[in-house]
Amino acid sequence: MIGKHFVQDILVPKPRRRKDDVKNICLFISAIATLWVYYLLNKPAVNKRSLNAIRKCAIENVQADLSFLDSARPIHTDEFLDRRERLAQALVAANVDAFVLEPGYTFQYYGNVSQTDWEPWEPEERPFLMLILPVLSQSGDVSAKTAFLAPHFEEGRVRMLGIPSREEDLDIVIWEEHWDPYATLLESRLFAGLNGTAKRRAPILVVDEELRDFISRGLSKAGFETVGLTPEVELVRQIKTPAEVEILRAVNTGTDEVRDVLNEVLRSIGFDPFFNIVLFEEDGALPHGGFVVGKKKVTEDTMVVIDVGAHYLGYSSDICRSFFIDPVRIDTASHSFPSGHMRDTSNPELREEKLRVWDIVLAAQSAAALALKPNNTAARADIAARSVIEDAGYGERFTHRVGHSIGIKAHESPYLNQWNRETRLQPGMIFTNEPGIYIEGKFGVRHEDVYLVKQYGEAELLTGRRATNPYNP
Amino acid sequence: MIGKHFVQDILVPKPRRRKDDVKNICLFISAIATLWVYYLLNKPAVNKRSLNAIRKCAIENVQADLSFLDSARPIHTDEFLDRRERLAQALVAANVDAFVLEPGYTFQYYGNVSQTDWEPWEPEERPFLMLILPVLSQSGDVSAKTAFLAPHFEEGRVRMLGIPSREEDLDIVIWEEHWDPYATLLESRLFAGLNGTAKRRAPILVVDEELRDFISRGLSKAGFETVGLTPEVELVRQIKTPAEVEILRAVNTGTDEVRDVLNEVLRSIGFDPFFNIVLFEEDGALPHGGFVVGKKKVTEDTMVVIDVGAHYLGYSSDICRSFFIDPVRIDTASHSFPSGHMRDTSNPELREEKLRVWDIVLAAQSAAALALKPNNTAARADIAARSVIEDAGYGERFTHRVGHSIGIKAHESPYLNQWNRETRLQPGMIFTNEPGIYIEGKFGVRHEDVYLVKQYGEAELLTGRRATNPYNP
Repeated sequence: MIGKHFVQDILVPKPRRRKDDVKNICLFISAIATLWVYYLLNKPAVNKRSLNAIRKCAIENVQADLSFLDSARPIHTDEFLDRRERLAQALVAANVDAFVLEPGYTFQYYGNVSQTDWEPWEPEERPFLMLILPVLSQSGDVSAKTAFLAPHFEEGRVRMLGIPSREEDLDIVIWEEHWDPYATLLESRLFAGLNGTAKRRAPILVVDEELRDFISRGLSKAGFETVGLTPEVELVRQIKTPAEVEILRAVNTGTDEVRDVLNEVLRSIGFDPFFNIVLFEEDGALPHGGFVVGKKKVTEDTMVVIDVGAHYLGYSSDICRSFFIDPVRIDTASHSFPSGHMRDTSNPELREEKLRVWDIVLAAQSAAALALKPNNTAARADIAARSVIEDAGYGERFTHRVGHSIGIKAHESPYLNQWNRETRLQPGMIFTNEPGIYIEGKFGVRHEDVYLVKQYGEAELLTGRRATNPYNP
Repeated sequence: MIGKHFVQDILVPKPRRRKDDVKNICLFISAIATLWVYYLLNKPAVNKRSLNAIRKCAIENVQADLSFLDSARPIHTDEFLDRRERLAQALVAANVDAFVLEPGYTFQYYGNVSQTDWEPWEPEERPFLMLILPVLSQSGDVSAKTAFLAPHFEEGRVRMLGIPSREEDLDIVIWEEHWDPYATLLESRLFAGLNGTAKRRAPILVVDEELRDFISRGLSKAGFETVGLTPEVELVRQIKTPAEVEILRAVNTGTDEVRDVLNEVLRSIGFDPFFNIVLFEEDGALPHGGFVVGKKKVTEDTMVVIDVGAHYLGYSSDICRSFFIDPVRIDTASHSFPSGHMRDTSNPELREEKLRVWDIVLAAQSAAALALKPNNTAARADIAARSVIEDAGYGERFTHRVGHSIGIKAHESPYLNQWNRETRLQPGMIFTNEPGIYIEGKFGVRHEDVYLVKQYGEAELLTGRRATNPYNP
């Protein structure tokens, strides 16, 4: 093939439509449910018909009320243009000539084109680049000029991508198959102003973090000067707009509701059939999960860790809950079983430790949440959670940073990490808050919610509600 | 989530098994067939039941004889080790200290781990790197040392990836969340030999082409010197081993056989229901395809372009055919219809041009095939095909290079491009040969097959057979 495009162009309509995304959410729910059914079916005692009925019911339950999606709207064309205007300001502040990126998460942010929108099968070896250049008016105002570098034979397809644009026609510098694309870009009209100056100098490009090395190196070799992301440039995407906040609220709240429904299903079937769902006990003690397809019997004292993410309108959710599966309603305040109810009492110390650790992690999460305020360093939230866990004697067991920013990617900068003392939090930044304690060979606990840093007051929870106890996660 | 791993580790067993790959081939066939059915169902006149029967029959036909897979075996552990040994030689020749790569196509080649093996949801922001270092013995022999840089909390998962290794334990340099991973690498035992010399110098790393810019920049900032791929390093992967040749033969031959079966299905249903399959007429004149979900009626004079690729045992196929759909058997030698058969005669000149162009492209492909010989430049094959097409008066209509190398990626270097006069072909290199003529608004023709450069004689066809005429593609 020469460009790998035949069927997928038909199958991937652009731009994304709300209806499709609702459908995707339902497909996601269905996929999770299918996964469960798959595991359950490995146990012969489980009736296939009743599982299908439960699956259908679970999906209907979620679909019955999709009001959590109401406030989320697809990102408007104007917002894409506004992002580039803000970027142009950042480029002037960094004293550079352009920002350069290829299809990927950052391109999705500025131009609504993901890597797979452009190339579903494998990353393309021919550079297709987006450039955003600051333009200074006579009066000193800064505005953004957007341009592209594309192979000649792909020009038509670039125009059909539906990249948001103020002009009717995109400004595309084309290169032929036998040209050097980077030299073509350097000699193009885009940098003519620079080259026309008496003392010709190399244009300076800020290179997106995702750009592949051969492109970055090709630009340097052709005569560009390249630099990495500057704090000003990163900040544009780090501060979420109201439209982004609403989408992130919708997808994170929705994911939590889906998890709630799944919990109900767990309870509705009863206790016995549940094997191998996500992480149990000592598997949960590897924070990333592991390869073990366990054959463990789940008891009332099994700590289950479920970490779920989804996409909606191009944005990510990321939620984690740790809990006991409880066959009967319970006195949730005391964590104690009603008298007379049977449970495994073979290791009461272990059970006590699980309950204690569950509470410690929740307290750590609360401490980190309080540190999510403007002007605090990114390190401070991590240290806040870490201090709680260290004081409780589990410092060595909290083996990762407390969180990360979240947006189009589930993991975005800034990272809430104890070494990150240079980044200051700002209103509009959104973070996961996910401390954990992992005791290898025994069990693991992690609580994860998503928070919006507000100008005044405490950070706002975007996941509907936090866990309240191990039976009501 | 902190590492995005919970369910997928269970769903993506390693290492790949032959049985799974055969299943994948069948799934691929089924997916293509489903796509057809999807389009056919848009036409109410088509009977759903009969289409399902046809689909079932098509799959059974292919499954009945999978002998084309017989010679292909999964890549053996020893071969992965041998690749690194050859790389070590290339690193010594390039006078550098190590090759560095992150999960992706190159990592799959040297370590059997793809990007999605490591991280199915989105590329990970924490560097996990593979390093291959040449080691010189006292006697001057060169061998390869393999090592890794990984986040501490991922160490266990790295060990469970099943990366082929001579040693029982992988050599992993770990970094904590609050450390600089690149400085950690520089100060590690891996480069202690260099740092111990009287005049301490920066280790030189060859950086894989896929490495993301922030990692490359992080290595430079920490004190490494980085350089791009050298010709010696590229050559290791460019020359395919006998095991790779057999897999590539199997997947390319198999894909062609599948296409044959689909053609039979086309004929078996008859003529009328076929709408919108892949590229028709002027849609075929955009080499990459386009967004149009056409509403065109396919006639006996419609030029259909089908470009198909698949994966088997980690390697790619890539085949394209251009043809007429013929409702009856025909005198294939003369391209003429049997007397008495009805066809659209409204534009005989266009029909004649299609037949002429079809033959020109085939002649161009033959010319390029003859140029696929050791010591020829990569440019020569492109120029050979281009000369034929230029002489026929369609030079402007052949808008892309004539081909590319193929292996784990469908598109690999070297590229058969008229500017590529520095690369010399060598035995063991495998290329697509895919000239085309695209007349916008009218139709397009491309023929694509895969060839192995041999030490002596003509290049060997790896796609079973070439097209012979527009009715027997």
